[in-house]
Amino acid sequence: MKKLLFSLLLVSSIISVAQTEDEQMMKNIYDASLLNGKSYAWLDHLSNEIGGRLSGSENAEKAVRYTKTELQKLGLDKVWLQEVMVPKWVRGDKETAYIEADGEQIDVPICALGGSVATAKDGLKTQVVEVRNFDELRQLGRANIEGKIVFYNRPMQANLINTFQAYGGCVNQRYSGAVEAIKYGAAGVIVRSMNLRLDDLPHTGSMTYGDIPVEDRIPAAAISTKGAEKLSELLREGPDLQFYFRQSCEQFEDVPSFNVIGEITGSEFPKEYMVVGGHLDSWDLGDGSHDDGAGVVQSMEVVRLFKELGYKPKHSIRVVLFMNEENGLRGGRKYAEEAKANNEKHVFALESDAGGFTPRGFSFDGSDAAVAKVQSWKPLFEPYLIHYFVKGGSGADIGPLKDDDILLAGLRPDSQRYFDHHHAENDTFDAVNKRELELGAATMTALVYLIDKYGPKPEIKKPEIKG
Amino acid sequence: MKKLLFSLLLVSSIISVAQTEDEQMMKNIYDASLLNGKSYAWLDHLSNEIGGRLSGSENAEKAVRYTKTELQKLGLDKVWLQEVMVPKWVRGDKETAYIEADGEQIDVPICALGGSVATAKDGLKTQVVEVRNFDELRQLGRANIEGKIVFYNRPMQANLINTFQAYGGCVNQRYSGAVEAIKYGAAGVIVRSMNLRLDDLPHTGSMTYGDIPVEDRIPAAAISTKGAEKLSELLREGPDLQFYFRQSCEQFEDVPSFNVIGEITGSEFPKEYMVVGGHLDSWDLGDGSHDDGAGVVQSMEVVRLFKELGYKPKHSIRVVLFMNEENGLRGGRKYAEEAKANNEKHVFALESDAGGFTPRGFSFDGSDAAVAKVQSWKPLFEPYLIHYFVKGGSGADIGPLKDDDILLAGLRPDSQRYFDHHHAENDTFDAVNKRELELGAATMTALVYLIDKYGPKPEIKKPEIKG
Repeated sequence: MKKLLFSLLLVSSIISVAQTEDEQMMKNIYDASLLNGKSYAWLDHLSNEIGGRLSGSENAEKAVRYTKTELQKLGLDKVWLQEVMVPKWVRGDKETAYIEADGEQIDVPICALGGSVATAKDGLKTQVVEVRNFDELRQLGRANIEGKIVFYNRPMQANLINTFQAYGGCVNQRYSGAVEAIKYGAAGVIVRSMNLRLDDLPHTGSMTYGDIPVEDRIPAAAISTKGAEKLSELLREGPDLQFYFRQSCEQFEDVPSFNVIGEITGSEFPKEYMVVGGHLDSWDLGDGSHDDGAGVVQSMEVVRLFKELGYKPKHSIRVVLFMNEENGLRGGRKYAEEAKANNEKHVFALESDAGGFTPRGFSFDGSDAAVAKVQSWKPLFEPYLIHYFVKGGSGADIGPLKDDDILLAGLRPDSQRYFDHHHAENDTFDAVNKRELELGAATMTALVYLIDKYGPKPEIKKPEIKG
Repeated sequence: MKKLLFSLLLVSSIISVAQTEDEQMMKNIYDASLLNGKSYAWLDHLSNEIGGRLSGSENAEKAVRYTKTELQKLGLDKVWLQEVMVPKWVRGDKETAYIEADGEQIDVPICALGGSVATAKDGLKTQVVEVRNFDELRQLGRANIEGKIVFYNRPMQANLINTFQAYGGCVNQRYSGAVEAIKYGAAGVIVRSMNLRLDDLPHTGSMTYGDIPVEDRIPAAAISTKGAEKLSELLREGPDLQFYFRQSCEQFEDVPSFNVIGEITGSEFPKEYMVVGGHLDSWDLGDGSHDDGAGVVQSMEVVRLFKELGYKPKHSIRVVLFMNEENGLRGGRKYAEEAKANNEKHVFALESDAGGFTPRGFSFDGSDAAVAKVQSWKPLFEPYLIHYFVKGGSGADIGPLKDDDILLAGLRPDSQRYFDHHHAENDTFDAVNKRELELGAATMTALVYLIDKYGPKPEIKKPEIKG
């Protein structure tokens, strides 16, 4: 009995030391990020010295070189480029559009969707059919649609608390709007911007033509939310109004680009890999500060903080800056392919691609047991107001790594302002708050630290948390 | 046994209905605020049509009239003004300041602290002594301070997660800096702005002269954080530099103003009052959108939502828009005095005065049992990402209501950006996000609803929450 008691005391004292160590390490991580972080300065360069980084562009290549150089300065064990072929689409001249109603021309702000074809040189001018969804399109049928512009105007649902859910409920209009409208002979597509605010900024984003041959493709553009409201209002007054738009965008052959990768080789499990990443490419309208400059510099900060704090991870930790998330996901696919080809065992991957706003927690994609294990660490995060540990979704670039054994995670920042900026010209450096960005980087680092130390697998030991 | 089982089933079915009702009511509240709210339009008017609302100003009186009229439109049971005498301080001409070092003049942005005296007409120009705190001041003593400007330059601590804590660790420099410096014969005071960012905006705020006679008072101003860094750097290079500043602010006699009050009279406990409020006055540099236009319109929205949703509270609910929180707290004191004089039993008060950012939860000041009761409702708030229910602090204006029986609460929004704007010229409408404001209003309404329904007292029945 005494022996048992002694053992219990011993165990509980070990537990208490471990707990103090983790609490202290987490405080060191947050302090270092907030007091002496590099993420904001890196973002400043990416956003203000380089700017928008669409795949295949000169800026994207500048970003590859810059982040490679910066990672090399950190004294990691390896830094390299992983070549990947990416699509090259170019916006061309600034788009123009107007509504012609009652002999008046009312300019409205539009932008070509990424991957769209151009209009004819003189633009496209014709009647408009407004719909909320593909069912309405079907009901209207070819008789009402042929030769006209289909105007998708289903707004994001404002009463959803998670704005990504509201985005998910609308984005098929943008992604598949053209391919659906072509079925009924439409001449073009205008999509209400995926934006919860009413403002004058059109939001671009990816779209597909499916397997429709080049000659049958129709131009597709996004219109600002205020423009969409105006167009809808005028259509109610006079359904025969004409809409004009002109865009000169062009799709080129694929070009080579790169994922940028840095590694700290693990001290105990060098052949077990943990990935932390964001995507280096961005849309071209803003400078891609939130999407996804923030995720890039936060991921770089994770390995920088480990080096600064002298933490030597047991597993190999890779920061991966993926190319071409926005219009192809080629970088994410390439990384997963090579990992598989090289028989690299990946045990954990974390992506930050939801903006540089105040972090609230993480979403997870993995076994119930692995998620439950991470959820049991919640109390360690409480001092940092990190409370959200929910199963469901991770990040696009790390998705291709999914198998039965890996735990995938996505940083979940506050989502309320994200779609005010997403894919629009106001996704700029000034919209990112330094502290919020740094808190996100620290939160990611803390999770990677705990998973490295206690393992992503439920059977491996875990820290005891006070009640 | 069967009877017991039956009773248990009956109870559990009642509980389950109650739970569904509360969940439904909360969803209705959030939906109504996000889809059909009035808070943002009210704030637009307060900020853009009226503007900064310093106590005793014409704008403050306009805000009194506007909010009274708007409350009257809501069909409340009573709307009235409660007269209160307030201080009247006027900034006068825009302040100017420069550092004179090595024959060069470097302009720096300053603003007078609220309540400060003016400099001489031609300004004040003298040497500067930089300190971090009052201890350093004491150690330097009169010999090193007399006739000089004391420059308080202790920055907000960036590694504190709650920025209000960082503010609390610095604000004595602003509030008591002059009264302390006068002890050693200082000629003036310059205080580093309470701002976690480095920028060019000076942040004003209240200060005291204690019982120092008017003729012995010295002028006090805030300098922007970048200005403070510059001044500190130049002082290290040449401690004999001169600092010039000029301000023409003036304190007048107290003037009459008003708290604005609206009431829905309780159906069961009309003599038990619940207060929800914010403060109508603001500093004069911006338009007071976050501090505290947001709190004002969110409080108005609470009673508007009850009316819209047809909820008839059991307790009397008062929206109180307090005058003069910023430089006197006269409105808060007056309301509490009259409540006491009229023997009004106040059971609950909630203030929103921490900005219109994404709400995270509430802080509470009350008995452990009352706080525990509210904390047990946390699961009801989870779908809205409201997770913070912590004992400690409520709001300045409702503080004077404190007694043994009342539960006080403060809305706790995300605090990371608040001090970027606080008391500065960029506390403006465009810095408030519509959804974030509306989520705050809904969160307040939900809490008031639950407290009204289940009572703030632990002994009264409470909803059962699923595990």
